[in-house]
Amino acid sequence: MTSVTVLGLGPMGRALAAAFIAAGHPATVWNRSPGKENGLRAAVAGTAAEAIAASPLVVVCVRDYAAVHAILDVEALKGRTLVNVTGGSPAQARELACWAAEHGIGYLDGVIVATTDAIGGPDATLFFSGPADVYEKHHHTLAALGGNPAHLGEDPGRAAAFDASLQDMLWTSMSGVVHMFALAEAERIDATDIAGHAKALLGFFPDMIDFLAGQVAAGSYPGDAGTLDATAATMDHVLAAARARNLDNGVLSAARAEVQRAIDTGHGSDGFGRLAALLLSDAAAGSAS
Amino acid sequence: MTSVTVLGLGPMGRALAAAFIAAGHPATVWNRSPGKENGLRAAVAGTAAEAIAASPLVVVCVRDYAAVHAILDVEALKGRTLVNVTGGSPAQARELACWAAEHGIGYLDGVIVATTDAIGGPDATLFFSGPADVYEKHHHTLAALGGNPAHLGEDPGRAAAFDASLQDMLWTSMSGVVHMFALAEAERIDATDIAGHAKALLGFFPDMIDFLAGQVAAGSYPGDAGTLDATAATMDHVLAAARARNLDNGVLSAARAEVQRAIDTGHGSDGFGRLAALLLSDAAAGSAS
Ligand SMILES: NC(=O)c1ccc[n+]([C@@H]2O[C@H](COP(=O)([O-])OP(=O)(O)OC[C@H]3O[C@@H](n4cnc5c(N)ncnc54)[C@H](OP(=O)(O)O)[C@@H]3O)[C@@H](O)[C@H]2O)c1
Ligand SMILES: NC(=O)c1ccc[n+]([C@@H]2O[C@H](COP(=O)([O-])OP(=O)(O)OC[C@H]3O[C@@H](n4cnc5c(N)ncnc54)[C@H](OP(=O)(O)O)[C@@H]3O)[C@@H](O)[C@H]2O)c1
Repeated sequence: MTSVTVLGLGPMGRALAAAFIAAGHPATVWNRSPGKENGLRAAVAGTAAEAIAASPLVVVCVRDYAAVHAILDVEALKGRTLVNVTGGSPAQARELACWAAEHGIGYLDGVIVATTDAIGGPDATLFFSGPADVYEKHHHTLAALGGNPAHLGEDPGRAAAFDASLQDMLWTSMSGVVHMFALAEAERIDATDIAGHAKALLGFFPDMIDFLAGQVAAGSYPGDAGTLDATAATMDHVLAAARARNLDNGVLSAARAEVQRAIDTGHGSDGFGRLAALLLSDAAAGSAS
Repeated sequence: MTSVTVLGLGPMGRALAAAFIAAGHPATVWNRSPGKENGLRAAVAGTAAEAIAASPLVVVCVRDYAAVHAILDVEALKGRTLVNVTGGSPAQARELACWAAEHGIGYLDGVIVATTDAIGGPDATLFFSGPADVYEKHHHTLAALGGNPAHLGEDPGRAAAFDASLQDMLWTSMSGVVHMFALAEAERIDATDIAGHAKALLGFFPDMIDFLAGQVAAGSYPGDAGTLDATAATMDHVLAAARARNLDNGVLSAARAEVQRAIDTGHGSDGFGRLAALLLSDAAAGSAS
């Protein structure tokens, strides 16, 4: 059993350490504030450098990349593998990977798509990216963290990029869900009444995602299943309803502005997927709206 | 079989007329521009007033409420039932219902939650609202339009309010979906690769909707399943990733601002459902952000 070091014992770091221990890995732990190791059957190091020196595989899970940089001891890490599962952006992951490569440190970037209580269980999803040989060497050990690990590619930013894209959809949608509830309540519709209809509507989402993915992949956005012109009219009804209740929080208005931009550039009879192409061409031109 | 008049033969009005005819209802149709009745086995009226006079039940389906108001003949409508399935806001529906009531016209407001090709089929959903007795009288006839009709209540604005709430969620989410694809593509992740993960994530949405509905219904928003503080950090990662690619279109930023407002008013350790309450209290105070 490979011995493992876990740096950071916040709720998530602690869950990771517990999962390694439960799977039989000898563990060394360290946390900035002492006492967080209570109840974990692990060796407790006095400094991050000592903790790093104890294992060939070092997992860091702290608040943010600033904390990661504050903790990491480059001398101690040389020749070891660092797996960083701290949340951050693809650029932060790539930068840390470069730093690691420069100093002869093996590096995998990881993203935890799970709550603390799912860690170690069959459903916990973890994304990893970085050199395939580094992943190969450690994936048995990392499998202790969850039954659903995925190596997404060699680009160290790829795990974070997958995560950012998915979280983008998730939190934008969640914002739509709470706004739906607010508008419904303002119209004296009970949240539990609208919820059933919302779930029925969600039933169409998987097909819609495949449909849009197909359009984006093909770079072709016919409006057969609904045009941006029609979407604009629908959004206007929704915004009128929201504004009548003082409920325009700017989220749907921003989406509406995007649709208008597509219409103004001659894409009114295209489908909604056209917006992805428009966003990308702006991005390429370095002139996001 | 009740005879029915359909005013407006755009793609949707035509589909409605065809469904009534297919179900055996004698139909009279009218459209502003002539010739749209081609191929429909219906009587064609020369004016809207003549069309209205031909049937006890008059269905109007045109572009918007301005068109509805331009068409309707108050003298001809007296004593008949008007079913308006033109898209609009709850306030527009309520206003038209008042006008109808003042002139002795029975009124139902309807919302079509279906595409033209689904009309008349078992899956087509239609929402209606207005007096229960008016709905009772005509629901057999209206059932010709789709197998999934629902009378949502007496408030004539209720069908439109249900629809606006659901479309709010739908189009906000759709905007998140295309933004996900754009961010993924900018990070060289294929749309079809991210689609599978997105669908897996969607699997959690029905439970999340029920969970949030429960919180909104109870007016209590504990953050056990995730706090607004944590959501803010996640959104910041996503926004950093998007901005690094010139892809901030203002949609998620607006949602992030909403989260910040909740944090600033002391709700950082509450769950995401708190945003619904915050929106509603702003709305009540007449001071939407
Ligand atoms: N919790 C989840 O459900 C979840 C899910 C997915 C991903 N994640 C990711 O996991 C990471 C850790 O999250 P968490 O839930 O454990 O809580 P957290 O509050 O994000 O992080 C707490 C940990 O960070 C340490 N820390 C903060 N600033 C530090 C600094 N300047 N120097 C050294 N250590 C510092 C804390 O040490 P002290 O104890 O000394 O303050 C503690 O160990 C985050 O990046 C998060 O995005 C968490
Ligand atoms: N199509 C769908 O899938 C769908 C789905 C759900 C709900 N709806 C709702 O159904 C309604 C009709 O939609 P649609 O798809 O048939 O197409 P539309 O383009 O929204 O409406 C076309 C109809 O409106 C008439 N019209 C427009 N302005 C007029 C005016 N000032 N006076 C008289 N008539 C006027 C047109 O007559 P002319 O032929 O003379 O221009 C035509 O009959 C809309 O409110 C829409 O929100 C449609």
